[in-house]
Amino acid sequence: MRWLRFFVPSALPISEPPTPIATDAVVIGAGPIGLFLVFQLGLQGLRAHLIDTLPHPGGQCVELYGDKPIYDIPALPVCSAHELVQRLAQQMAPFAPVQHLGEQVSTLQPLATGGWQVGTEQGTQLHARAVFIAAGVGAFVPRTLKLLGLQAYSGGQVLYHLGDLAPLAGQQVVVHGGGPEAVAQAIACATAPAAQRPARTTLQHRRDVFDAPPELLEQLHHLRAAGHINVAIGVPSNVEQEPGPPARLTALALNTPTGTLLRLPLDVLLVRLGLTPRLGPLAEWGLQLERKQLPVDPATFATNLPGIYAVGDVAHYPGKRKLLVCGFHEATLAAFSAAEWLAGQPVPLEYTSSSTRLQQRLGVQAASTLTYS
Amino acid sequence: MRWLRFFVPSALPISEPPTPIATDAVVIGAGPIGLFLVFQLGLQGLRAHLIDTLPHPGGQCVELYGDKPIYDIPALPVCSAHELVQRLAQQMAPFAPVQHLGEQVSTLQPLATGGWQVGTEQGTQLHARAVFIAAGVGAFVPRTLKLLGLQAYSGGQVLYHLGDLAPLAGQQVVVHGGGPEAVAQAIACATAPAAQRPARTTLQHRRDVFDAPPELLEQLHHLRAAGHINVAIGVPSNVEQEPGPPARLTALALNTPTGTLLRLPLDVLLVRLGLTPRLGPLAEWGLQLERKQLPVDPATFATNLPGIYAVGDVAHYPGKRKLLVCGFHEATLAAFSAAEWLAGQPVPLEYTSSSTRLQQRLGVQAASTLTYS
Repeated sequence: MRWLRFFVPSALPISEPPTPIATDAVVIGAGPIGLFLVFQLGLQGLRAHLIDTLPHPGGQCVELYGDKPIYDIPALPVCSAHELVQRLAQQMAPFAPVQHLGEQVSTLQPLATGGWQVGTEQGTQLHARAVFIAAGVGAFVPRTLKLLGLQAYSGGQVLYHLGDLAPLAGQQVVVHGGGPEAVAQAIACATAPAAQRPARTTLQHRRDVFDAPPELLEQLHHLRAAGHINVAIGVPSNVEQEPGPPARLTALALNTPTGTLLRLPLDVLLVRLGLTPRLGPLAEWGLQLERKQLPVDPATFATNLPGIYAVGDVAHYPGKRKLLVCGFHEATLAAFSAAEWLAGQPVPLEYTSSSTRLQQRLGVQAASTLTYS
Repeated sequence: MRWLRFFVPSALPISEPPTPIATDAVVIGAGPIGLFLVFQLGLQGLRAHLIDTLPHPGGQCVELYGDKPIYDIPALPVCSAHELVQRLAQQMAPFAPVQHLGEQVSTLQPLATGGWQVGTEQGTQLHARAVFIAAGVGAFVPRTLKLLGLQAYSGGQVLYHLGDLAPLAGQQVVVHGGGPEAVAQAIACATAPAAQRPARTTLQHRRDVFDAPPELLEQLHHLRAAGHINVAIGVPSNVEQEPGPPARLTALALNTPTGTLLRLPLDVLLVRLGLTPRLGPLAEWGLQLERKQLPVDPATFATNLPGIYAVGDVAHYPGKRKLLVCGFHEATLAAFSAAEWLAGQPVPLEYTSSSTRLQQRLGVQAASTLTYS
C-alpha cells in the first residue's frame, strides 16, 4: 500500500532532532498584523521567522473574505484582502523573514539562557529572543469528521491534507464534504492521469446539494453523468474495521435520508470540510487566556510570560476592537517594547521620512533633504 | 491709510453674534489623524465639522515634510505626506465634513444642555455633542517678532497675514525674515502692478544670507541689482513711534553686524518668520495638560472633560509613540467610545467588508456575497 508509506508524518524525527535555528524574533501568524509586525521588527533591527499553518500569507483575512472590499484601512479608500496582504508583503520584503508556511507551532518552551524555543509539528525548531503571537482567531486547521474509531486512522487511511494524488492510484477513495474543497477534491481525483487515478471516487455528503462555484458544480455534474464520480448521500454513523495488526478501515456506514443504512467500502477517506480556526496548543504554553484571548498590557503588548507578546485579534486589553487598524498599532508598539526589553534601554522614536538609520535598514536611499541655498 | 481699514479683523462681530451651528462632532486639527477621525466618526453615523488654522488639510505632516517619503504607513510601502493626505481626504469624502480651514479655535465652553460650544477667532460658533482634539503639536501660527512696543501694532502696521497687496500701495514696506516666506513676500511686493506696489520694499534680515529655493534667490538678486528691493542687515533693537492717538510706528532701529545703529523708516512691517506650532488657548479650556500633551484613557481616548477626546500627537498615555499608525488606531477607538457615550449603550463591532449599514453610510454598493449555488 504505497499511500501508507507516503503519509508518514514528515515531522517525526527519523534520525536526529534538528538543530534549532537562532533568531531575534518568531512571529506566529502570517495574517496582515503578523506581516506588519515583521516590518516593524525590521525597523527595530530585529530579524524574524514567520510561521503560519496556511500555505500562504494572509490569515483569516484572506481565508474568510479575500475578495471582499475593505474600506477602513487608513489611506486605502478601498482594498481587497488579497491586495492588502500583497501590499503588506511588499512593505515587509526589505526585512525578508524566514517563512515557515504550512507549519503549525506545537511547542513553546523557555530557554535556560533566556528566550524561547519554538517548535512546529513539521519539525522546525527555533531559538528566539522574543516571540510574538499574531494568531488571530487561531490556526486555520481542517475541520475534522467526528466518528467513533476514526481518529486512529488519521494521517493513515483518513487524510485531512493531500500533497500528491499518486498514492491514491487504484484505491477506493471516498471524499467527505459538501463544500468547494470536497467538490474540487473529488474532481481532482476523477480527472487525474490514469496512473494516479483512484479505482473509484465517491463524493460523500449528507444531502445531494453541493456548495461550490458554478464551474465546479458543472464539472461535477458531467463527471457524475459519465460515471467517473459516484455520489453517496447520508450521514456517517460508524466505521467498519478489520482487526490487525495493523487494523484496517474497510468501510463507512451511512444513514441515508430515506432511513436505510448504506455501506460504503473504502481504502482512503479524504475529509474535506474546510478550515476552522483553533487556538490549539496555545492554551498549553502557560499563557493566561481569557475568553480565547490573551490579556496584554496595552503599553507594551506583553503577555504574562516575559518576552512573549500578543497583537491583533488574539490579544485583549480594555477598549480592544478587533480591527486591522488597531492591530497595526499594536504590532508597532509591541516591536518597540520588545526592542527596549531586548536592548535593556529606551529606544528613541525615529521617523522613516527622516532617519538615516531606518532608511538604511529599509534599503532605501536617504531622502534628499530640501536645501535652499 | 487704506491698509488700516483693510485689516480690521473679520472675526469681530459687526452687528449680531452668529447663531451657533449644531453638529455631532467637532474635530480640531485637519492633519492625517483628524481626517481619519472624520472617516471613523462617519462610520459611526456621526457628522463632523473640521477646523484647522492652516488653509489646507494635512497639518504638520504636510507643513514640515510634505514631499519626503514615508515608509511606515501599513500597506503603503512608500508614500509622500501629500499623497497620504490626498488619500485620507478621498477616504473621508463620503462623510463630507464642514471644513473651517484657516480658522483657529479660541473658545471651548460647556453647554448647559450637554455638549460643548466651540468658537474660532474667525467667528465660527458650533454646538457639538462631542469634541475631538487632533491638534498634533498645536496650531500652526506665524512666528512672532519679539520687540518691546511692537505687539500694540499687530494687525495694524505690523502684519503676520496678508490677503491682498493693494493696501500696501505707495507705502514704505519692510519685510522681516530670512527664509522662503520673507523672500517670496519681498518679491511679491516689488513686482506688484504699479497701482499696488509699495513706494519702497525693504527686506530686513540679521545677515545677508537668505534661505530660499534657488529660483527665488535668483529673482531676489535681480530685483536688488535693479533697486526694486532694498536689503537692510541687522538685528532689530527697538521701535520708533509717534505718540497718538492713534500712536504710529515710524521706524525700526537695527544693530548692524559692524556695530552701528541703522534707522529703517516704515509704514508697514510684514513679519515673515514662518509658522510655528502653538498649543495656544488649549491650555485655558480646563483640560489637564502634561508636558504639552493631553493625558487620555487609552481604552476610550477621553480627556479629563466629559465629551472631549484627544488623539494623535497631542494625546498621551502609557506606551504612547508619536506615529501616524498609532494615531489611526486612537482615532478609531475615540470614535467608538464617543459613539457609545452619545448612544448610552455599547456599539457592536461591524466590518466594512460585510456590514450593510456601514456600506450604506459609505455610499458603496453592498459587497456581492460569493454564493456558490
